[in-house]
Amino acid sequence: MSYDRIKLKSLLDKVITAEQAAQLFENGMIVGSSGFTKAGDSKVVLPALADRAKTDPLKITLITGASLGHGTDGKLAEAGVLAKRMPFQVDRTLRGKINSGEVLFIDQHLSETAELLHNKNLASVDIAVLEVAAIEADGSIIPTTSVGNSATFAALAKHVILEINTAVPMEIRGIHDIYQAEDYPRRNVIPIVAPENKIGRKTIALDPSKVVGIVFTDIEDSPADIAEPDTKTTAIASHILNFFEKEVEMGHLSSSLLPLQAGIGKVANAVLMGFKDSNFRNLTMFSEVLQDSTFDLIDAGVMDFASASSITVSKPCYDRVFGNLDKYRDKMVLRPQNISNTPGLIRRLGVIAINTAIEFDIYGNVNSTHISGTNIMNGIGGSGDFARNAYLSIFVTQAASKEDRISHVLPMVSHVDHTEHDVDILVTDIGLADLRGLAPRERAQVIIDNCVHPDYKEQLQDYYDRACERGGHTPHILEEAFSWHVNLRDQGSMKK
Amino acid sequence: MSYDRIKLKSLLDKVITAEQAAQLFENGMIVGSSGFTKAGDSKVVLPALADRAKTDPLKITLITGASLGHGTDGKLAEAGVLAKRMPFQVDRTLRGKINSGEVLFIDQHLSETAELLHNKNLASVDIAVLEVAAIEADGSIIPTTSVGNSATFAALAKHVILEINTAVPMEIRGIHDIYQAEDYPRRNVIPIVAPENKIGRKTIALDPSKVVGIVFTDIEDSPADIAEPDTKTTAIASHILNFFEKEVEMGHLSSSLLPLQAGIGKVANAVLMGFKDSNFRNLTMFSEVLQDSTFDLIDAGVMDFASASSITVSKPCYDRVFGNLDKYRDKMVLRPQNISNTPGLIRRLGVIAINTAIEFDIYGNVNSTHISGTNIMNGIGGSGDFARNAYLSIFVTQAASKEDRISHVLPMVSHVDHTEHDVDILVTDIGLADLRGLAPRERAQVIIDNCVHPDYKEQLQDYYDRACERGGHTPHILEEAFSWHVNLRDQGSMKK
Repeated sequence: MSYDRIKLKSLLDKVITAEQAAQLFENGMIVGSSGFTKAGDSKVVLPALADRAKTDPLKITLITGASLGHGTDGKLAEAGVLAKRMPFQVDRTLRGKINSGEVLFIDQHLSETAELLHNKNLASVDIAVLEVAAIEADGSIIPTTSVGNSATFAALAKHVILEINTAVPMEIRGIHDIYQAEDYPRRNVIPIVAPENKIGRKTIALDPSKVVGIVFTDIEDSPADIAEPDTKTTAIASHILNFFEKEVEMGHLSSSLLPLQAGIGKVANAVLMGFKDSNFRNLTMFSEVLQDSTFDLIDAGVMDFASASSITVSKPCYDRVFGNLDKYRDKMVLRPQNISNTPGLIRRLGVIAINTAIEFDIYGNVNSTHISGTNIMNGIGGSGDFARNAYLSIFVTQAASKEDRISHVLPMVSHVDHTEHDVDILVTDIGLADLRGLAPRERAQVIIDNCVHPDYKEQLQDYYDRACERGGHTPHILEEAFSWHVNLRDQGSMKK
Repeated sequence: MSYDRIKLKSLLDKVITAEQAAQLFENGMIVGSSGFTKAGDSKVVLPALADRAKTDPLKITLITGASLGHGTDGKLAEAGVLAKRMPFQVDRTLRGKINSGEVLFIDQHLSETAELLHNKNLASVDIAVLEVAAIEADGSIIPTTSVGNSATFAALAKHVILEINTAVPMEIRGIHDIYQAEDYPRRNVIPIVAPENKIGRKTIALDPSKVVGIVFTDIEDSPADIAEPDTKTTAIASHILNFFEKEVEMGHLSSSLLPLQAGIGKVANAVLMGFKDSNFRNLTMFSEVLQDSTFDLIDAGVMDFASASSITVSKPCYDRVFGNLDKYRDKMVLRPQNISNTPGLIRRLGVIAINTAIEFDIYGNVNSTHISGTNIMNGIGGSGDFARNAYLSIFVTQAASKEDRISHVLPMVSHVDHTEHDVDILVTDIGLADLRGLAPRERAQVIIDNCVHPDYKEQLQDYYDRACERGGHTPHILEEAFSWHVNLRDQGSMKK
């Protein structure tokens, strides 16, 4: 135990075990937890709660920043602890229980959960579990590798359990910028005009009387799975980089572009890595997650500054960053997700948003969440916060997958997360469709010409041509619109 | 002619006729025009252009604030002038030509057109036609009953034609607040923290050397069609007012609520009129259009201030407001639509957004634009700007129409403008569904229980129950999802 991480000595007697902490939860409670894209999550208390529930069943609503690491969501789901979960998850077991209807899931824009809680549009949080690096003498807390919704939970929860993670170096203090907008009707301007602006506190304010338990841990975040770029991701990245180069040539953008947001995953990593050997310089990020590529670009002198709500990196990158925090301290900031993802800042800064689609359709509607319209994959995450308000909204996906039995470019998406109104650029490994200034019928032809896998090109053109014969601003044949999904289900392939 | 409305004397020799102005357009030009919800539009130049095209054909792209009055869009469409139109329209003739594919239409969030133009994500404007009340000595112009995108067109267009409308009293000077955000990457804060804040100029800056023609008119705006509240709109309004009363009782809102936005039309008017005989006081609006009800509430002492981009009212209300501008001057402001509708301000102010749906589905997705997925009605307008960023996002529609052959509550909407992530409250004349904090399966039951017309309740429950048997986070039977629309087309009714 590193009791010196508890600077407010009156809290020393709150130290308990994870098992004791797990007893503080009651059936029906609404629980807020730190954790955003596997970073800064509860390492022992939530798992202990899952263990407790095996013999002493209870159900809770669990609200986090975003996804948790270490299979914790799966353990909780397996133990039947989760009645309701929001706003995001990536766990295979939990996903199965959501899709079977056992767990209720609310798939929410990541900027909005804190708003809903502050505005009492969601029921109030009974207890929060927050991973921290330390407790300051004033009772305020130092977050770890993510901020997520922790500032909101600290402010609103009736009770708080703190997990002090001694695996996180104390030098992390200062990389966070904790700012919360005022409650309505007296909300002021959020005074950020550049990614590097720091406008808040270094620590999260917390009323020490709320602390009902302090648990020590020394477990690192689950590492990010870094997939090496493959032919498809490299092709997608190359289309995007070529597009940016042309925009610079035309004088629409400078070689620093505008602040970048990149969704999590290998395509985003491939795009960002592409900047390394490019002519782009003095790049910045205003994103929600910092991945390995961010730090590679900083090391390469290509990126000047990165703002986000969490750091989710591979083990080697984790060691490099957290072993050299002084090197990176002035080049990054972690913010609450209702600041990192807030609509007004995204538009004010002119963010270029690059996010992954599950599928898109010929009119530019994007499905980010559902397999064949019914089963959720992960959730919308911050993609909606960014895409709607971005200077440029780019979505990427592979043209086809599963031995090309699935086309990701379709007559009609089976679930809409991003409407035709919010999508500027669509990219697959086949090519890029620039939809700016195009009406639906123009978009359709550009998408068919540039993005669809060759095996599906004729079939998609045929659908579109026959739809046009029926007319409409957005021509469709409603009884056929989902026939590709139905064919996949019934015949194992979307091919006719 | 009232040449005294041209204070910059060097422009006096630019006065021409509408017919002469119509000759300034060339085939292929991109034209920007004032006009927002029939207010402040070109009264003579665009109609003269339509006349010219009958014998001297040409095609243009026409970008406005929003819809035009006096059937101008129809005249232009009929004359074959429109190659492309954005970002909104409400004209029956134009709509027909869009749906037949003759005119390309881009249905855009009303806050975004100016952004796209400033960012060069749309081709540049060749010529702008702007209705003004007068030209100041510095060449700047006084808008009339709307601001729309006029400040953007004035800044970016290569050439400008001004229509001085002498039917608009000079006392209108001062009701506008013209502010434009800086271009990227040096955009600053938009310093509005309350609807009544005025942060800009009283007039629109204009380089006089751009002015290629000045035309005089004295034609008033097309009056708004004010439909008297009927049983359905009164029922919808009553559900919403009861909801607000409960929110106040629970302490979530004060009796001034938060700034209101209301879409155009009779439901919005009915809701606003409902406030007149209520306990709500010191209301404000932060909206895009001010309608009769706004001024009725101001007169009744119930509303303190209203911010928007246009005034679209009946003839009696027009005379009342513009004959007594000194009375209303401190109670209203008209802003550019990229300010009235900007995402950051909507969230900062905590706007309560009430907009009309064409149809919504059991999971809370809303279609605002398309009839049976293909034919556009008007366009998304500002509903997306507001709904996504609002404190509360409310959508209203009648439960059924056309002798109840059409249900507006459906298994799946045929076009998505507002996703499940962006919708808080759904209301029909049958009742109100509060979706806050509900997962998709919960939402479905609440919507079926509260909103659907009795004739369709069993049928909708049956769809949902059978979909649930198949499982999924968002249960659906894809091959049946649009069967209600297909039945309407083939059998004249959505009833099974």
